[in-house]
Amino acid sequence: MRAPYLLFLGDTVLQGTDKTAAGLAQWRPELCLGQFRLPGCAADVGLPDMDPVEAVARGAQTMIVGVVNVGGFMPENWQASIIAALEAGLDVGAGLHQRLGDIPAIRAAADRLGRTIHDVRQPTRGFSVGNGAKRNGKRLLTVGIDCVVGKKYTALAIEREMRARGHDADFRATGQTGLMIAGRGVVIDAVIADFIAGAAEWLSPDAAADHWDIVEGQGALGHPAYAGVTLGLIHGSQPDALVLCHEPIRTHLLGLDYVIPPLADCIAMNVAAARLTNPAAKMVAVSINTSRMSPDEADAARTRIEAEIGLPCCDPLRHGAGPIVDALDLPKS
Amino acid sequence: MRAPYLLFLGDTVLQGTDKTAAGLAQWRPELCLGQFRLPGCAADVGLPDMDPVEAVARGAQTMIVGVVNVGGFMPENWQASIIAALEAGLDVGAGLHQRLGDIPAIRAAADRLGRTIHDVRQPTRGFSVGNGAKRNGKRLLTVGIDCVVGKKYTALAIEREMRARGHDADFRATGQTGLMIAGRGVVIDAVIADFIAGAAEWLSPDAAADHWDIVEGQGALGHPAYAGVTLGLIHGSQPDALVLCHEPIRTHLLGLDYVIPPLADCIAMNVAAARLTNPAAKMVAVSINTSRMSPDEADAARTRIEAEIGLPCCDPLRHGAGPIVDALDLPKS
Repeated sequence: MRAPYLLFLGDTVLQGTDKTAAGLAQWRPELCLGQFRLPGCAADVGLPDMDPVEAVARGAQTMIVGVVNVGGFMPENWQASIIAALEAGLDVGAGLHQRLGDIPAIRAAADRLGRTIHDVRQPTRGFSVGNGAKRNGKRLLTVGIDCVVGKKYTALAIEREMRARGHDADFRATGQTGLMIAGRGVVIDAVIADFIAGAAEWLSPDAAADHWDIVEGQGALGHPAYAGVTLGLIHGSQPDALVLCHEPIRTHLLGLDYVIPPLADCIAMNVAAARLTNPAAKMVAVSINTSRMSPDEADAARTRIEAEIGLPCCDPLRHGAGPIVDALDLPKS
Repeated sequence: MRAPYLLFLGDTVLQGTDKTAAGLAQWRPELCLGQFRLPGCAADVGLPDMDPVEAVARGAQTMIVGVVNVGGFMPENWQASIIAALEAGLDVGAGLHQRLGDIPAIRAAADRLGRTIHDVRQPTRGFSVGNGAKRNGKRLLTVGIDCVVGKKYTALAIEREMRARGHDADFRATGQTGLMIAGRGVVIDAVIADFIAGAAEWLSPDAAADHWDIVEGQGALGHPAYAGVTLGLIHGSQPDALVLCHEPIRTHLLGLDYVIPPLADCIAMNVAAARLTNPAAKMVAVSINTSRMSPDEADAARTRIEAEIGLPCCDPLRHGAGPIVDALDLPKS
């Protein structure tokens, strides 16, 4: 997709649904020019507000739908904004299950104006079923107690810290936002169910012995809607190291009447699953998302979890990802 | 699909890949006229051998591709046989991931001849993501130690036995063969990964308190390629009762270098997964596939497993499904 970007936030009011826009603004700020919000929008990723016409005047090339609602469908009242962006001179990118290119009015406008639509959630290749064979190289997978808890940010922060220390590490995107940030990957929840593990095997291929793929996790093993994706991703990634992502103040799965089990149970469940394809898999650290907590609360949570679980714990955005990378106990490079 | 059927077995040599043909011959014999085998074919579902021309002369309406290889792709050398069937006057049905209708030569032949192609593995509707909310009515799900172990046959035998006893029970198909047998269902491994649990929720909807959906299981939680599908199906089905399907002489997963864990571990893993969405879930029986064992071996396995596990055990095709239905402890109807 051609940068710079205008990030479309629609009229979203639900926590966490702006994660595509927030992820791009956090990890690729140099590509993000502004945000475009409709009346009533409760999201704000901290960029200047502008509409498509103003964004084009400032040099924007592509408007990205930065909000992904549950199920990945697009509210009808966003169509006019998408078409306005095309008419203003922008390409449009999105990570919804529903393809923008399949919506007749949007397709027609893009064709008429000669603009490009990027539906990044659609796999652009076929996959094989998994084979469960051990691959060379090392892999780290972030797993979580729930969705929207920090699995992508944690993986990106680990990649950054490992590279800063001179290690050979690649972030491997498995979601639409991660893919937009990294420019490659596979949107694992959009592949045909039979090929989840096979797609994950493809994503982190055979590599040199000291190479690390840092794989972005998806969903949660204890989530009634998404655990299948999570399990296939765990099996296909055959991680050597797992990092559990947690939000200390969360008690229930987002939007569901499901209590989050104790951390120790989450850890045991994920490690047991990972050991099917990699008997050496172990949980090395807990990554906490403390973005809705004060510094004191964050530090207290960190201390409490380290004592309770006996693993290093940190918020990679607040404390840095150093403790997680230390826990990998890598040879100095 | 219009019956009667000619079942195409290709030149398959791998155990278990003829399960669509075998399932139809076993459960819908009144619809199956013959089998069409290429030189070198090692499969035999016990029907008269005939080619498409002869099948048409005897009244066949549709040729069904009765073999599904790993990954669901069609070998190129089968194309000529499919086209020969179309030219002889037959429609063609298949349950492959790869759509027959997407293969240009087959599509062209069908269009030219005015025949219908049925690609039953393609979902004909969209699904929502799962919501994990408890539904009324009762559900039984067959799970397994591996693929191709008897999950579909067990579910069909339970439906037959329950109906014979006057209970309100419906087989719910989740695979291409089950769907061809039942005439409805969802091929769960062909849905988009994000919707596995949601599709399973759709398949066994809210029902009367004494209604039982008997859901066909898929894959295995301990299978490195397919466990994601299995887990989503377990969560979405929210079974009250689970039946573990087993082949006593199998030591490794089919075609893989993975040892099958002890039955007690398989049971614990499946029950733990099911309790996420139905805390009352329990394993009620073990169904064994003794088709490659002598009567004495089958009876010995049954006795041994009952002693080891403490649950009723039977081969529904050899001993009848009575012991499994007894284990549900239903009120007399």
